[in-house]
This record gives sequence, structure tokens and C-alpha cells, in this order.
Amino acid sequence: MTMPMTIRNLTQMFKPQSLALVGASTHEGSVGHMLMKNVVSGKFSGPVWPVNPAHDVVEGVKAYRDIKSLPSAPDLAVLTIASSLVTQTIAELGALGTRAAVVISAGFNETGAEGKKLEQQMLEAAKPYNLRIIGPNCLGIIVPGSSLNASFSHIAASPGKLAFVSQSGAMCTTILDRVAERDIGFSHFISLGNCSDVDFGDMLEYLADDVDTSAILLYIESVSQVQKFMAAGKRASRKKPIIVIKSGRNKEGASSHTGALVGSDGVYDVAFKRAGMLRVYDMEELFDAVETLARLKPAQPTGLAGDGHMPRLLIVSNGGGPAVLATDYLMGQGGKLAELSKDTVDKLNAVLPPTWSHGNPVDIIGDANGKRYAGALSVATGAPEADAVFVMNCPTAVSDNVECAKAVIDNMRSAADKNIFTCWLGEATAHEPRRLFAEANIPTYDTPEKAVRAFLHMAEYRHNQAILMQEPPACKVPSPGKGAVDTIIANAFAQGRNELFESEAKEVFSLYGIPVVKTYVAKNADEAVILADKVGYPVVLKILSPDISHKSDVGGVILSLGNADAVRHAAETMTKNVAKLKPGAKLEGFTVQQMVAKREGYELIVGMSTDRQFGPVIMFGEGGVAVEVIDDHALGLPPLDTELAFDMIRRTRVYKRLLGFRDHKPVNMDTIIDVLVRVSQLVSEVGDISEIDINPLIADEHGAIALDARIKLVKSTVPVAERLAIICS
Amino acid sequence: MTMPMTIRNLTQMFKPQSLALVGASTHEGSVGHMLMKNVVSGKFSGPVWPVNPAHDVVEGVKAYRDIKSLPSAPDLAVLTIASSLVTQTIAELGALGTRAAVVISAGFNETGAEGKKLEQQMLEAAKPYNLRIIGPNCLGIIVPGSSLNASFSHIAASPGKLAFVSQSGAMCTTILDRVAERDIGFSHFISLGNCSDVDFGDMLEYLADDVDTSAILLYIESVSQVQKFMAAGKRASRKKPIIVIKSGRNKEGASSHTGALVGSDGVYDVAFKRAGMLRVYDMEELFDAVETLARLKPAQPTGLAGDGHMPRLLIVSNGGGPAVLATDYLMGQGGKLAELSKDTVDKLNAVLPPTWSHGNPVDIIGDANGKRYAGALSVATGAPEADAVFVMNCPTAVSDNVECAKAVIDNMRSAADKNIFTCWLGEATAHEPRRLFAEANIPTYDTPEKAVRAFLHMAEYRHNQAILMQEPPACKVPSPGKGAVDTIIANAFAQGRNELFESEAKEVFSLYGIPVVKTYVAKNADEAVILADKVGYPVVLKILSPDISHKSDVGGVILSLGNADAVRHAAETMTKNVAKLKPGAKLEGFTVQQMVAKREGYELIVGMSTDRQFGPVIMFGEGGVAVEVIDDHALGLPPLDTELAFDMIRRTRVYKRLLGFRDHKPVNMDTIIDVLVRVSQLVSEVGDISEIDINPLIADEHGAIALDARIKLVKSTVPVAERLAIICS
Repeated sequence: MTMPMTIRNLTQMFKPQSLALVGASTHEGSVGHMLMKNVVSGKFSGPVWPVNPAHDVVEGVKAYRDIKSLPSAPDLAVLTIASSLVTQTIAELGALGTRAAVVISAGFNETGAEGKKLEQQMLEAAKPYNLRIIGPNCLGIIVPGSSLNASFSHIAASPGKLAFVSQSGAMCTTILDRVAERDIGFSHFISLGNCSDVDFGDMLEYLADDVDTSAILLYIESVSQVQKFMAAGKRASRKKPIIVIKSGRNKEGASSHTGALVGSDGVYDVAFKRAGMLRVYDMEELFDAVETLARLKPAQPTGLAGDGHMPRLLIVSNGGGPAVLATDYLMGQGGKLAELSKDTVDKLNAVLPPTWSHGNPVDIIGDANGKRYAGALSVATGAPEADAVFVMNCPTAVSDNVECAKAVIDNMRSAADKNIFTCWLGEATAHEPRRLFAEANIPTYDTPEKAVRAFLHMAEYRHNQAILMQEPPACKVPSPGKGAVDTIIANAFAQGRNELFESEAKEVFSLYGIPVVKTYVAKNADEAVILADKVGYPVVLKILSPDISHKSDVGGVILSLGNADAVRHAAETMTKNVAKLKPGAKLEGFTVQQMVAKREGYELIVGMSTDRQFGPVIMFGEGGVAVEVIDDHALGLPPLDTELAFDMIRRTRVYKRLLGFRDHKPVNMDTIIDVLVRVSQLVSEVGDISEIDINPLIADEHGAIALDARIKLVKSTVPVAERLAIICS
Repeated sequence: MTMPMTIRNLTQMFKPQSLALVGASTHEGSVGHMLMKNVVSGKFSGPVWPVNPAHDVVEGVKAYRDIKSLPSAPDLAVLTIASSLVTQTIAELGALGTRAAVVISAGFNETGAEGKKLEQQMLEAAKPYNLRIIGPNCLGIIVPGSSLNASFSHIAASPGKLAFVSQSGAMCTTILDRVAERDIGFSHFISLGNCSDVDFGDMLEYLADDVDTSAILLYIESVSQVQKFMAAGKRASRKKPIIVIKSGRNKEGASSHTGALVGSDGVYDVAFKRAGMLRVYDMEELFDAVETLARLKPAQPTGLAGDGHMPRLLIVSNGGGPAVLATDYLMGQGGKLAELSKDTVDKLNAVLPPTWSHGNPVDIIGDANGKRYAGALSVATGAPEADAVFVMNCPTAVSDNVECAKAVIDNMRSAADKNIFTCWLGEATAHEPRRLFAEANIPTYDTPEKAVRAFLHMAEYRHNQAILMQEPPACKVPSPGKGAVDTIIANAFAQGRNELFESEAKEVFSLYGIPVVKTYVAKNADEAVILADKVGYPVVLKILSPDISHKSDVGGVILSLGNADAVRHAAETMTKNVAKLKPGAKLEGFTVQQMVAKREGYELIVGMSTDRQFGPVIMFGEGGVAVEVIDDHALGLPPLDTELAFDMIRRTRVYKRLLGFRDHKPVNMDTIIDVLVRVSQLVSEVGDISEIDINPLIADEHGAIALDARIKLVKSTVPVAERLAIICS
């Protein structure tokens, strides 16, 4: 097996046999000194070679003047020298035979043009040797399994099965500080800094196959090579859970409806989901996710979590109030309580006092001791109607919360593979039970809501895993309409346009099997009247101009024209309107189309825009002229199959209305799904389409039809076959 | 000054000079034993008299056989005896002269019919003596200022300025356990249990004037006497901050649109807001609110926080990543970052290294020490463009987070009255800085998001305070239309109806100055045609039947009828429809009204329903037939003035659309506000109205008009003058 380029020489990085510390220092408080201290106290088993031109010994270890004096090539070099010296040092290390370096030094990309140049030079020095670099501008790396603490962190990582990879050094020290007292250990603790060479994609590729890593946590500010990231992310996701927190959730503007609605952060959202990862949004969620990942039993994905597939939670508590808060939170987030079967109630009756709640949450009463917890829990973990169990305890003077925790732990040892979440409330008397749970590897949280959120995370994670497994086939035979569409687009380019006329856009959709309202082009008012007679009244008249994108903004759309006179009058009014509101615009005539009554249907939007990083992104949501202010939409990455398309629809608010209510029949959902899948096919096959707006797509119980459509073009430089490589690889 | 009944004898309860413990026990682990131990270790300064028929001494204190053997009447008696003995004991205590008792014993209301009877008997025994009771079924009370720990809590409360009042004993022990290590103290720690006598209203009334209490925290499951609660809550809110967590957020069903949308928990939401309280939703928020309340500097309300009034936050951090997470959270919750003035930037340039972020968040770089924190903070607290400052610290090896915390604390001593929030990240090395902040009374949180949430809580609290100050005058001269409305309603009652016909409902609204589409009643198809000719085409025809509430569900509404034939045909079709779909319904004819084009307007809903506890509740939101599934509405309690009505509108999603977008003009907001205020006046003055649905209210740039209207009636037993007493008292 050849090793993929992306993880080449990373074994030397994370499992080095020898170590050079270039810039190791005797100066108390300096980064080079802290690094040296960390390496030494980490008990690295191979030789450690400090490199320092001014000292013979650093921290009791023999030091070398320079790289060429080293006894042999170190597997890994860690640099804490001035940025101006890094390139030369890397070149010397490469020449000596070193293939991995961690550059802790700052003063590169993050400082501006001069630093950018330095960083580029450093990479070029490394290239001839395939010398891999983590950093620059990072905290370093910790690999407890290799007894390697090559960082200047104030606190070390304990050994364990979690990998943490972060773009922010501050997040690294924060997490280490946070978990230090919580018995949570790491296989890898990696500060990527500027990601000049080794990036998230490489790390995912490496960690996917690392047997010492059971789960991966990422702190991301931005991803540079998304294709590598997605491919490696999906591969890793299939083997172990990945949780990601991404900061910087600001929206970017754009010109079309779809463009304005698709913020680039929203695309990250759907990309993470598509790669089977779980995204969390704040630091508390991240801390809790660490707890959950570190402790949770592996669980197989249970299929796409539609309305019917949400896992059901059973709650056991010795206090009513906090159990109600847990239930409030669960319901508020769309979660589900298990409905106790008669069998379960009977079994609980046998182990609980008669005053127990006789329902879920199972209130086992304030004086519950360990024995009662054990009894309730053995019934709960055996109940087939519950997918997970949440046990909580409120401190009381009449029972011992440590004894109760021990009873839960003993019971779990013999329990099936059902997941259990715990919350021992309070703080002063909760330290010991929490420590016991950590020791027993049972996830524990300090409030009921956090425990319920962990359960919901588990549900969402399984859903995303199902999406990952769902991956539609990437390459198909192109649609028979593709040739004709290419011709229409070539024609538009030939005329110097980067937007299709509405009539052309509708033709494109027709060729891909997307229903559109037939639209005819008239050069002038007379032709418009003739066409309107042919279409049948009432009709809609719209202005046709290459310079006007939002026609209704300039009075360029008039609906419900009932006869020939009305059409002629509208055409004249419209011409005047445009002359006044958009004087420079070139008028090419009008379009005439049948008026579709939308009173009984829903105005939806189906769009597509091109993300700078992720390429084509498809959008679905509530449409109409108020689409931006309604702000109800979901994104998806092509290729979409029917399951993925339906998943997008389900994530909108308008979905509930589409299901029908009162005397309104449900819409024909299959036809909406079909439109999304066909748009996905179109943008997958035709590389020059940069934006699509179908707004409105009118849907009712019979079907869906596009009333208005816009297509923008950009000559693509990416071969069609590679267009979806980001998602399909 | 006479003491209000509601707080009579509560001074004996909370500041007793002598104490009897009825049921004090020598039996290790029993409630009576723990109570005795708590009282003794609490160092109660007056005489303590254990009452126990079997022992002469309990915990080294002389015990008495029974009540009548006591040396004199104790100010306060605490009972931990069997529920069956409580009534007799209360009677004896009352006779002896005791005026306050805490009944810890369980076995009352919470256990069913027999217990209910016992609780009633207990209350009757207390009544002749005005003997006040806290409990039964509670944990007891702790008043550190009186050296009184009359509870069986496993942990004591430290002295301080917070009052905590809870319906759940489990929440009491949880909070005590949680704050034990955090230097947070209490003036009162009260477990109300079943609230048989002393309830939330009494406690608020008492605590409002208690000089030892600076803030109040409530854990509520339900409020029984809402009028007392609201009056006392408002009075207390004007003097000190109140935070409430209420559990049990389940919705109740109802028949009308408005009824279905007004869940009783939603009414609590608006009632708390109206009373100037801040509601929090989960336990973590509650813990954080304790922190905030205990430490925050008092701040004056700054006016109703409309879009322009949101306070602005300035963030100072030594780490970029966590600062971005804080910003993400702030923006995601609709908060505002302060925009740094040139003056502030100049001042920061003078104290920070050149690589600082030059914007807000102010990144003071990872190697920031105490001096740099002090410099940045003195600029930040003096910046007029910021209303509050959030300082955070990520642990690093190159600076000492304790030194940084000390610098912040020293700086704050000399700072103005600007509020500051802190977050020292991590845990292992964060204990000491957090302890220092607690000691210095500076609010501190363990994640950036929690600190930002505390800031947002402060903003919301000030908004609710402004609403409280906004209180519109309760009583006005009745509207001139009231007499005619009373006649219409009397007529309906006389005909045995509890719902007005649509035409009558519209007449009622007209009489109160609410614009309605004129609607005429036709006995049959012929009359309908005549009326349609008169109204002018197109018209809307609706069925008229006392048995049909949702007309469109049975095909009883046909729109856009263009001529006489269409009207006649529609009348016949409708009659057939109804015969098929609702065979028993009595048909009284049809209503004919002008068709109002709603294409350019918005379909809104204005409704009112009667809450079992809070009385009339007004609703505003997006309307139309899909109103339930759209689920976008806000509630308000009458009386409403224009400010309160506008505040309701602002809380809906549809509000953004009403402001106008693209070529859509903004609606005439004043007319919508006017409709809400007039509906408020109507329901305030006419007591027999139990439900109102105006759906749709069509609004555009010219005004608002009610197209459809329903009014349901219930003969009111409350005098009109008292109808709004809950809110106006």
C-alpha cells in the first residue's frame, strides 16, 4: 500500500524516535524554556537534542550549537527560534534527513505581507525533502501515547482516546485546563496554528486510521482545502465520531435571493452534516461534547431521523422540579420521552414505593437510596421502549448521593449496551459522585439540561451518520437535455450576457424535466397581445431586459391581465415605468405567460449559488417576494438524492404547512423533491451555471411548477467531472 | 400604618425570638433529628424548645412533652410530626399565642383526597389566631440574618443579600449545594412546599420591603393567586430585581385560533415581563442569574429596548478564538458590540502592543500580563460608546492568570458604575481567579457565552423594568360604544347563543372604532344576490349558522364572486356542502361582504382569550388560515397602551415584513397598534367576552381592516371594574 501524500511523514511527526528542540532555552519564562521543560517532564523515551548556539547544557541535557552538529537526523524538530531564522533551519534539517517539524515561532502569515513571504519561503525550503510542518504560530503538539509533549502549554494532556485539533492556541490551553481535573485523556492534542502545511484534512486522514484515537474534536476558524477536508472527514466519520466547533458565524452579502440567503457559515453547517460530523455552537457544548465523546458507548446509526425516528429518553430522578426542567428542555428541542409500557410500569411498581410518579419522568421520591436507584435503573435499562436513560439525583439530607452514584455504576456494569446519561446536582457534595462516574466512564453533566442536550447530540450525530451512509452515487450518465442546455448557454455567452433571459432559463429547466409555466417572448406590445390571445387569459406580462434582474422592483411585472386591451395598456405602462426608474436599461420586449392562481398553493423557492470554497450549494425554502425577510430556508450540497432532498425540506418551517392543515390538502411532496433532485443534476452537469433562483415555485396537492426563474452564468474553469469532487470524493 | 393581611405575622416567622421544634428527634437520620441539628449548629440566639413526648433532652437541649408544657408561646414553631397530628398541634400553638409555623411534614395535598382534607383542617385550626403557615411538605426555611436554619437541608446557607423562594425542595438543596463553594449568600432561603397559606405573593410582599434583601429568585411550578402575585411582584420589582424560573412549559389545547395559540405558559411569560421580572428557562441560566444578581451593580432602566436601545458590549480578551465565540453568541442573540470611537482606539494604542486587534473584540494578545489588562480595562470602562465591558482570559504559560485577575479587580475598584463581566477560562488554574472575583463581588462565568448571556439578561431586565414603569392607567371612562355592545350581547344571550354572528361581531368592533369590512345578512340566496348588487362585485359569500365556527372547514366561505349568477350558484353549493359535511347544523342564511384584495396587504391576527388564572389575554401575530402552523405570535395583558401594543408587534417574526422590503411599502403601524389598544379597551370594559378572533386583519400602507371576526361569550361573574385587577392592582 502506498501512503497517501496527505499523511506522508506524519508518523515521524507523532511517533518520533528522536527529537531536536531548536531554540531550547535556559531563560526562565521563555517559550523555548517551557518547551524544554515540557519535553523533559513528558518523559520522552528517545534522545532529546536541544539546539542552542550559546549553551552547552539546557535543563541538564547536552545541547548542540547548530543543526549540523547534531549526532544524527532527528525524526522531529520543534522550532522556537526567530521567524527570520526558520527557513534556513528547515533547509538544514531537510538536508540532514529530518522529515517532520513543529514550528511554534510566530511572525508569519498572521503579521502581514512580510510574514506571508517568510511562510512561503519556509514551505519551499521544506518541499524538496517532503518535510512536513505543523504551524507556524502554534502552541505545539502533545501525543501522550508517544510520551511527547512538544508544546509550551502550561498544563499537560493525560493519555486517552480523544484527538483534539485546533486552529486556536487559546482553545488548546483552555480545554487542557478544563479537563485536567476530569479524568479525560487524549491520544493527540494538536495546535495547527497557521496551517501552512499540515491542515485539518491531513489530520483527519491520519486520525481516521489511528487505532489509539476513538473520537475527534475540531476547533475550526476556516478550512482552506475543502475538498481534502470533506474527503478525509467522510472517511474518518465512517470510523469514529467527529465533533466540530467553528467560530465566525457572520453572513456575507450577495446579489440574488439565493446568494443573500446562503451565508458561507451556513454552507459549513451543511458540509459538516454531509460529512457525518456533529457541529456544536458554543464552548459549553464543546466541553460537554468532550465528556460525551469520551464516555459514550458506540451506537449504530438508526436511519434518517425523520419525525418518527427520534430516539426516546427515559428519565429517572429523586426530585420532581429538576426532572420537569429536563422534560421542558427535551420537549422544547423537539425531543421525545419514552412512553412507559405496562410491563415497565409493573416492574417499577415492584421496586418503587407506591407514591412514585407512575410515568416518565420516573420520580423515585426524595428519600431514594442506592438500592432504589439500582432497582429503577435495572428496569429502565431493560425497557425496550427507551433508547437511552437519564438518571439524576438532587442532594438531600436523607440519602447519600455517593451511595446512589455507586449503585448506578454497579448497575451499569451489568447493563446492556444502552447509553446512560447522569447528572448529580449541586456542587459541594457532587464532586465525589462526578469523580466516580468519570472513573467508571459514564457521561455526567452538571445540569439536567446539559445531560438532555448530550442525548439530543447523540440523536443528531446518528442522523448525520445516516446521511453519510446515504451518499448518492456521484457520477451518472448526463441528462439527455444537457446538449441543448449547453447550446443555450453558449449562445448567451456569445451575446456577451452572463445571465439567461427568463424564457431561456425556463427552457433550461424544461430540458431537465422541471415543470415551468410556458413563457413566450414578444418584441413589442402588438406581439404581446397576439401571444396573450394564444396563451389564454388571464396572463402575466413581464419586461424583458438584459439589464433588469429584479423586474418587480421597477414595475416590470403586471399580473392578472384579463383581456387584450389590458395587455396593451400594461405594456405601455411598463415601458414608461422602466424609462423612469431605470433609464439606461435596454428593452428587448416582453414575456407573456399564463397566470397561475397561487391562492391555494404555496410559494416556495429553489435556488443554487456557488460558494467560494464549497462550489454549488442548493437552497430550499419559503419563497415569494418577501423571501429574505421571511428567512426560512435550508441548504444542501449536490448531488442530492430523494432522501437528502427531503431532509432539506424537513429542516424548514414551511414544511409543517406543506403537510396540510385544516381544509388544506398536503402538497405533492414527491414533485418538490423531484425538482430539487433535478436542479442538483443540472448544476452537477452544467459547470457554467453560477446561480439559480426559482421563485416562486408554486406547489399544491397536484404538483409543483416554476413561475419565475433566473439563471446566472460564469465561465467555469473546473471540468464538469470534478465539479462535485468536494462532496463526492 | 396597618400591615397588609398578606404579610401579617411574617416577622415572627422570619425574625423569631423563640423557637419550638415539634417532633425534634434523637433518632439519627430522621428529619426531626436533622432539623434539631441544623437549628443548633445555626446558633439560633433565642431559646429553642424541642417538643418530644419520649425524651427529656434532645441534642443536649431540654425537651418538652407537649405544647402546653412549653414555658411560653414560641414565636415560631417548626413541625416534623405525622400529618395526622398537625391540626391538633396547630390549634394548641395558636391558643398558646404562637403566630407562625413551618410545617415540614408531608402527607397533605400532594397525596390525594385524604391529604387535602387534612390540609384544609390544618388551615382552619390556624385561622382564628391568624397563625401563618409555611408548608406543609417543605424543606423548611433558612434566614441567616436571624441565625435561623429551620430546615433539614444537608448544607446551610451563608448570609447574604439574595432571597430564594422555591416550590421545590429539590431545587433548594441543589442551589445550596451549588453555591456552597462560591461565596454567594442569602437573606432568606424559603421552601414553600404546598403553599397552603404563605405563597409567592406573600413572600414578594414581605421581601419588597426587607432591607436585608437586594434581589429575589423564584422557582415556580404554578401560581395560585395571580392577582396577589402580580400586585406584590410589581411592587417588589420596582425596588429590587426579581428572577424567576418556571417549570412545566406544556401547552393546553383550545377551540379558537387564539385559544390554541395562547398556551398558559405563554401567559406566565408575559405576566412576568409585565411585572418587571426576568424569566430564565434552564438551570444553568438560573445558576448564572444567581451569580449576576449577587454581583451586578444596580443600573437604571434605560427605556424600552427597541431596535435602537440594545446596550452595547465591549469585549477584552487575550485570546482570539474564545473572543470570536463570544461575539458569535452575542450577534446570534440579537445583541450589539460597541463600535470603538477614534478616541478609544487612540487610547488603546497607547497601552497595547501594535499587534492588538484595533477593533472590538479588543484582542490584547496572548502574552498579556496584569499591567496590560489594567491599561486596556481603564480605557474600556471609560469609553462612552460601551454600556458594559466583558473581560476574558485564556490560560497561557507565558502570563499569570491570577495576576491578570488581580489587575482587573484593582482597576474595577476605581472604575465608574459601568458593569463588568468576567470569564477566566479553564478550570484547574481558574479556581483561584474565580475565587478572587467572587470575593471582589465581580460577576464571573466559566464560558464566554455565559458571560454574554448575563449581559443580555441585564438588557432584558432593563427592558422589562421599562415596561413596568410604562404601566398604562387602569381605569378610564368607558367607550361611548359600550352601551350598544352590551345590548348586542344581551340579545345573543337571550337567544341562547354563546357566540355572536359574524355580522354582530363586526358591529361590536365598529362600535369600538375598529375598522371592519361591512357585512350584510341575507336570509336566502335571493336576498344574497340583492345585497351583493348593493355592495358591488366582487363579493365574498359566507354561511351563517350558530353551529358552525370554522366556516371554511365545511366549504362555507366562497371568495371573489364576480356577478349575481355566481352568488346564487355559490349559495346553493354552500348549502349542499354544509348539509353533507355538517348535517345537523342550523342554517340562518348567508353574509355578503365586499371582497378586499389582500394581495398587497398582510394577513394578521388579533385575538383575545381568557386564561383560567390571568383573565383576558391579547394576541397578535401573522394570520390567515395557516395561523396555527405558522405559529408566529406574541401575547399581551390588557390594558395595553400604544407602547405595550407596539412591544407585542415587535416580538413577532412578521414584524420585519411589516416594516417594508424591496418594493413593498411599510404598513401603517399606528393603525395596527390602534386596533390592539381598542381591542384591549373592549375586553377591559365588556366582561362577557371570553374570546375574540380577528383573522385576518388586513394591513397595508394605508391602514388595517378586519375581514373576518368572531366573538365568543361567557356570562361573567366578575364585576367589570375588577376584570383587570390582576394587571392593574
